[in-house]
Amino acid sequence: MAKLWQKENQKTDAIIEQFTIGNDPVYDLQLARYDVMGSLAHITMLEHVGLLPAAELEPLCVELKNILETIEAGTFVIEEGMEDVHSQIEYLLTQKLGDLGKKIHAGRSRNDQVLVDLKLFMRAEIMEIADAVEDLFDLLVSKSEAHKNDLLPGYTHLQIAMPSSFGLWFGAYAECLVEDAELLEAAFRLANKNPLGSGAGYGSSFPLDRKLTTVLLGFEAPHVNVVNAQMSRGKTEFYVLNAISQIATTLSRLAMDVCLYNSQNFGFIELPSSLTTGSSIMPHKKNPDVAELLRGKSNKLKAVPNQMQLLMSNLPSGYHREFQLTKELLMPAIDEIKDCLEITQYMVSNMQVKADLLKDSKYDLLFSVEEVNKLVVAGMPFREAYVQVGKMIEAGKFNGSSRELNHTHLGSIGNLGLNEIQAQKDAVWSRFGFEKVEDAIDSLLS
Amino acid sequence: MAKLWQKENQKTDAIIEQFTIGNDPVYDLQLARYDVMGSLAHITMLEHVGLLPAAELEPLCVELKNILETIEAGTFVIEEGMEDVHSQIEYLLTQKLGDLGKKIHAGRSRNDQVLVDLKLFMRAEIMEIADAVEDLFDLLVSKSEAHKNDLLPGYTHLQIAMPSSFGLWFGAYAECLVEDAELLEAAFRLANKNPLGSGAGYGSSFPLDRKLTTVLLGFEAPHVNVVNAQMSRGKTEFYVLNAISQIATTLSRLAMDVCLYNSQNFGFIELPSSLTTGSSIMPHKKNPDVAELLRGKSNKLKAVPNQMQLLMSNLPSGYHREFQLTKELLMPAIDEIKDCLEITQYMVSNMQVKADLLKDSKYDLLFSVEEVNKLVVAGMPFREAYVQVGKMIEAGKFNGSSRELNHTHLGSIGNLGLNEIQAQKDAVWSRFGFEKVEDAIDSLLS
Amino acid sequence: MAKLWQKENQKTDAIIEQFTIGNDPVYDLQLARYDVMGSLAHITMLEHVGLLPAAELEPLCVELKNILETIEAGTFVIEEGMEDVHSQIEYLLTQKLGDLGKKIHAGRSRNDQVLVDLKLFMRAEIMEIADAVEDLFDLLVSKSEAHKNDLLPGYTHLQIAMPSSFGLWFGAYAECLVEDAELLEAAFRLANKNPLGSGAGYGSSFPLDRKLTTVLLGFEAPHVNVVNAQMSRGKTEFYVLNAISQIATTLSRLAMDVCLYNSQNFGFIELPSSLTTGSSIMPHKKNPDVAELLRGKSNKLKAVPNQMQLLMSNLPSGYHREFQLTKELLMPAIDEIKDCLEITQYMVSNMQVKADLLKDSKYDLLFSVEEVNKLVVAGMPFREAYVQVGKMIEAGKFNGSSRELNHTHLGSIGNLGLNEIQAQKDAVWSRFGFEKVEDAIDSLLS
Amino acid sequence: MAKLWQKENQKTDAIIEQFTIGNDPVYDLQLARYDVMGSLAHITMLEHVGLLPAAELEPLCVELKNILETIEAGTFVIEEGMEDVHSQIEYLLTQKLGDLGKKIHAGRSRNDQVLVDLKLFMRAEIMEIADAVEDLFDLLVSKSEAHKNDLLPGYTHLQIAMPSSFGLWFGAYAECLVEDAELLEAAFRLANKNPLGSGAGYGSSFPLDRKLTTVLLGFEAPHVNVVNAQMSRGKTEFYVLNAISQIATTLSRLAMDVCLYNSQNFGFIELPSSLTTGSSIMPHKKNPDVAELLRGKSNKLKAVPNQMQLLMSNLPSGYHREFQLTKELLMPAIDEIKDCLEITQYMVSNMQVKADLLKDSKYDLLFSVEEVNKLVVAGMPFREAYVQVGKMIEAGKFNGSSRELNHTHLGSIGNLGLNEIQAQKDAVWSRFGFEKVEDAIDSLLS
Repeated sequence: MAKLWQKENQKTDAIIEQFTIGNDPVYDLQLARYDVMGSLAHITMLEHVGLLPAAELEPLCVELKNILETIEAGTFVIEEGMEDVHSQIEYLLTQKLGDLGKKIHAGRSRNDQVLVDLKLFMRAEIMEIADAVEDLFDLLVSKSEAHKNDLLPGYTHLQIAMPSSFGLWFGAYAECLVEDAELLEAAFRLANKNPLGSGAGYGSSFPLDRKLTTVLLGFEAPHVNVVNAQMSRGKTEFYVLNAISQIATTLSRLAMDVCLYNSQNFGFIELPSSLTTGSSIMPHKKNPDVAELLRGKSNKLKAVPNQMQLLMSNLPSGYHREFQLTKELLMPAIDEIKDCLEITQYMVSNMQVKADLLKDSKYDLLFSVEEVNKLVVAGMPFREAYVQVGKMIEAGKFNGSSRELNHTHLGSIGNLGLNEIQAQKDAVWSRFGFEKVEDAIDSLLS
Repeated sequence: MAKLWQKENQKTDAIIEQFTIGNDPVYDLQLARYDVMGSLAHITMLEHVGLLPAAELEPLCVELKNILETIEAGTFVIEEGMEDVHSQIEYLLTQKLGDLGKKIHAGRSRNDQVLVDLKLFMRAEIMEIADAVEDLFDLLVSKSEAHKNDLLPGYTHLQIAMPSSFGLWFGAYAECLVEDAELLEAAFRLANKNPLGSGAGYGSSFPLDRKLTTVLLGFEAPHVNVVNAQMSRGKTEFYVLNAISQIATTLSRLAMDVCLYNSQNFGFIELPSSLTTGSSIMPHKKNPDVAELLRGKSNKLKAVPNQMQLLMSNLPSGYHREFQLTKELLMPAIDEIKDCLEITQYMVSNMQVKADLLKDSKYDLLFSVEEVNKLVVAGMPFREAYVQVGKMIEAGKFNGSSRELNHTHLGSIGNLGLNEIQAQKDAVWSRFGFEKVEDAIDSLLS
Repeated sequence: MAKLWQKENQKTDAIIEQFTIGNDPVYDLQLARYDVMGSLAHITMLEHVGLLPAAELEPLCVELKNILETIEAGTFVIEEGMEDVHSQIEYLLTQKLGDLGKKIHAGRSRNDQVLVDLKLFMRAEIMEIADAVEDLFDLLVSKSEAHKNDLLPGYTHLQIAMPSSFGLWFGAYAECLVEDAELLEAAFRLANKNPLGSGAGYGSSFPLDRKLTTVLLGFEAPHVNVVNAQMSRGKTEFYVLNAISQIATTLSRLAMDVCLYNSQNFGFIELPSSLTTGSSIMPHKKNPDVAELLRGKSNKLKAVPNQMQLLMSNLPSGYHREFQLTKELLMPAIDEIKDCLEITQYMVSNMQVKADLLKDSKYDLLFSVEEVNKLVVAGMPFREAYVQVGKMIEAGKFNGSSRELNHTHLGSIGNLGLNEIQAQKDAVWSRFGFEKVEDAIDSLLS
Repeated sequence: MAKLWQKENQKTDAIIEQFTIGNDPVYDLQLARYDVMGSLAHITMLEHVGLLPAAELEPLCVELKNILETIEAGTFVIEEGMEDVHSQIEYLLTQKLGDLGKKIHAGRSRNDQVLVDLKLFMRAEIMEIADAVEDLFDLLVSKSEAHKNDLLPGYTHLQIAMPSSFGLWFGAYAECLVEDAELLEAAFRLANKNPLGSGAGYGSSFPLDRKLTTVLLGFEAPHVNVVNAQMSRGKTEFYVLNAISQIATTLSRLAMDVCLYNSQNFGFIELPSSLTTGSSIMPHKKNPDVAELLRGKSNKLKAVPNQMQLLMSNLPSGYHREFQLTKELLMPAIDEIKDCLEITQYMVSNMQVKADLLKDSKYDLLFSVEEVNKLVVAGMPFREAYVQVGKMIEAGKFNGSSRELNHTHLGSIGNLGLNEIQAQKDAVWSRFGFEKVEDAIDSLLS
């Protein structure tokens, strides 16, 4: 089957074919629905500006929606030898509608077609990731509330430091995710810009109405400058990977805590057997493999933005073929972060926290600051109280026996501030404005 | 001079001292003014909640403002043997006010003190970087307008592709910077959160009013959860470095274009002699060293977020001493991006674009798409027109002689959309809301 | 089908199964033959030290070699639900030999079993990569010899500098590959060490003869210390990825040169149509997609060692489950570098260099240093000659018309030193000593 | 003071000066001695091939050696406004010897001059790093021997696994360093190649004798091809940083172990007070700051090779100005790894290991494999013995009370194989061949 840009009978070696096309058809399947959406908007606009006769718009739309149905049904395939998803869809159209099918490419380059597909794909995936983050946030908040009275040793420098609680620990990761979502918002803003009409990066002499396609596809705005629209290739992907990497950073830290807390030397939590595995030679082992793999997969994800930078570094402006390779970095990373979020949800739901941990005398020293503070409240300057308690400890006279905690300020053990954290989360999600996008797509496909 | 945490006469080797303290005193000088601000807000709050007698607040405020004056005047120093800026300021206070000086640390840990200093520092630096980005944006927009009629060959795959213009090229980088600023906004949001009151990461039993210090320091909100406040250490720095890295990505691409366009094989621009250097053996050379160094420095900056990731990866929650090392990554990167932005401003201002570039017959092929489009407008299906012009070119019959361009759609050569780009820029800057911060600081220091 | 470490009726969710096993069965297929080799050596040793009756060794060896035949024939599969390749092979053995099959795991842990499989796999792959590097080296040397008289402009700072030649250019990449092979040698040394007998990283109380398995498997030496043997997990993979990354660095630079030299603005080489593609809208384009993808794939490979670092950073000593994920980085990278080397071989073989490039007057200035040198040879101090020729150029009086080149020193245009480069290459390859490995494996399998 | 390449009255702004020169004069001071060595070898060769009268060689050598004395004495300075160390040395020569001083640059470019300086510098620094690694190796071996009977819990998955020992732990890091040195050897091989005579990357028409300078400077061989010699710029630095990064990887893992073992929840070692610090609010803290900073600095170093890759990626062949920036990455990294090695030496020397750790009943399960092995030795198939002991543990009937260990195989607790490890280390060091280099330099300077 011929490639669109092949003028006549050029031969391409199988090896070159493999090297240049690689797994593209597999990745491209994920773009199919967005390619249809982009084409629907494009031809609606072509008709609007007089580049497509009104009578030709309807059959093209009908046929594109038929193709969309096969995509949604999972029966759409990219045939052997077909270069990419765009070729496949155009081929199906021309099979049905003849020469009319060829008209949809007028005023478009494959470059801006791929760009718009990727933008729509990334926008949808960001929305899914945001949903999963929201679910995990909700779970962490409820766990924080449920365990607000379960105390936990707090560490600094991996040394026993001051009293903490599971309420504080779960709540911390909840708020952390809200702050991670700031980078997801930046990615969403960039993904939510319309590149259509930028052609191969230098626009065209057709009188395209780029604002119309912007509205039809629910984009917030166009990438105005066509050279900049092309420069957003790779950059948008980078923003998405950057946001994924940040979420992964939080998940990997949580997983590290879990692995440590699950070690017999800490013993703060218990994992269900579904989350542990045994050893081939040690019959006593219950290894936290799932948490370790969560940590490892998250850490791998943290490296992908840098890989993207190396892929694109020092390329002058204008399209280069290796931009195609960004899909190989982007798509598996999206799948992986969604898997990681799902597994974290499962892990947090199913782990058991141990009660009464601080009764162990090993943790007496956690209460030394309380002792200092009592002296301060009684009037002693802080630095002196600090020295006095320090001397008690060195002399073995400190037992921290009262173990009374009176933390009341915002965000502390006794006042977790979950409402405030919830409000911060709601503010970020309302800035996203996902509904506007959903409405536009509904309207386009109706 | 003793360290605050030294209970008695511990000796520390000079070598350990060097390894642990390193260049901290140098970096800490940049935090001095913010340390004073943090302390002013902290003691105002202590007085408000009854932890500091009203009569003691005034002398402490007066003395802190005196210290601030020496900082602004450049006469403040961190004395030999003093561990950090916090110790130096507390030492100066106790010299003047005796035991009263020691009271400012009540309800605070060095951890949240450093955190608040760094947040205020980063917030101020983000504002400076944003100003420099704005200046460069303005320059690029004016250059775009000035050169809207100067045509330039557009390339894809480093192959001659379609007509572009200097107006398009300058405008692309202007819009690109606006999109880079999305990551600066994310960094600003995270830097603009109040960690004060989080202590060593587990809060305290003092009845601190964290909302009051949030208002006094002009923060948008507190980091609510104290464990999360501590987790923002390194993370905020990462967001800032991430934003810097993105701006650097744009500058390095611009610099690569400049190096290429300045090569005799392209010859699209001319650099003033102040931006070029000669060779020690080739008397004819005018090397674009400044653009190359801009490219190199920018590329180095692109690697810093990854370095930060490696520094913090797989550390469990809670403070670890290596967080101190983040200053060594953050502060030089801030200086470097400011230098790079300044040099880019100078370079863009002073380079000359060459006129009439497209008259060279080498560039005839740029107009092949125009020829195809003409046939399409005349009714031929796109794919056929494409094949027909392709055959003309192969037969050597295409000369692109008309060279008439009629690009009218938004963002193309004939319609640069600078107003739209300006509006997008204004929207991002208004979301920043720098004035609110400035007002709060003015009020705190008045 | 049960996992080896499952004591009884634990259930594992499908989702956990997917998260933990992932693509391991696919990757593990590549380890199958090495798993058989490792087991053959292990049981031969067990028999030698009296842990396996002599009569039991023979049937086990026969059956393992039968399994190896199915692997070589491509009919071996890892059955659905089987955890890994080791389980599959042990399962096949016990099906044939009953309880006897279970005995092969005595004195071994899955940890050192995987380690030895991976070492053998990496060692074999390094040998294949070295062969491909050698082929490319040979081609570059022959191209260098063939084009020793075809001059080429030499650039510094992307500015026209001094005369070069295709002989010099091809030869440079040949020597460059020899130096890259130093890192391949380091990887080979680490891969060529025997971890067998290290168990789960703490050895065992069986009287294993680790020197015997070292000889049987053709390793140069054992990893002596068993904790260190375990620490080589990930580290050996890193060394291999590091060597791959260095080869990729060379290929990406070569590809960048090719893309530039193929641009109409340079026009130094011509690529065959099998290595170029067209544009969907510009009928005149012949884009060097293959070279761009070579550049891109190579650049992606350069990022993998850093990804490995992030995966393993700050893990304390001892095995952690995420070491399994290193296969996901290692195996695709090995495939990719082999593809890249093959494509480079094809590209270098098939590109045409243009003759008489320096006749273009644009390149007159290349000869300015020759002019300076003439004056120096005639007795003028270098710095004065430099100034004098510089003034001629500024006054437009320099034409470089003689264009006579008399470069005679080693490694210059007139004396490419290909024999010396060949000798350096031979020295590195003889240090590898691949034959010793091949002999040992032949003997083990005979 | 004028720059060598300034023909006449070009002005350079202070800001450009700062941007282009930066900290080069500081870094260049480290190159001064090597610049003299390079010049001595170069002029000896010039005289040998007849490009310098015999009578002129002697005074130049005398004067260069005088300058070398000031360098060794620490009185040599790069004067204000002088561009680099090469200019300074040539300036001093011409002050003393007039025009004769200008002759040393004949047949050389600043490019190959810098290259040779850097090669000599890196070679010397590799030798120093190797010495420090050797010292640490010796210490670890002696600690391993001293603590061979001090048992330690061995972990996998951070779970209690099997018995280990401090002898095994120290010995593991000793052997690990030997394997790290393989990358140091690769770096040494590349640093030990002579680039002199490659000029600006395209050689020259002078009849230079590159083999003579190779011998005089003690290089193992020349970079033969002059284009490749130039491509070694950045690449050699990368190899060195790569080796540093690998050593840092080992140190950071050791430091992580130390931080964990020092935590109260493990309590395996005790650090002297010189290696710990207190807290500003918690009077009981003894934080392992030095180990944490060792971990952090090492982790930062692990990121530098990637930074180097980003700096040089996608630059076509030929010199580019940003190669100058590689010094900013290389030189601090060399200083940092030397500091880290010194601190590690101090830390390992001074930490105390705790005795009788395994008497704690928490560690009973470490002995489960021993129990399985006993059953196997008694004739039970491994898989059955495993299940039987597993059931005992689940039923709470396993107490591991015998605690008898009988590990005898090479590299295990009872047979540390320190002689074998020492032999492997000696083999690597003898391949380095540092003496040959030292002899050549002695001879050059005599």
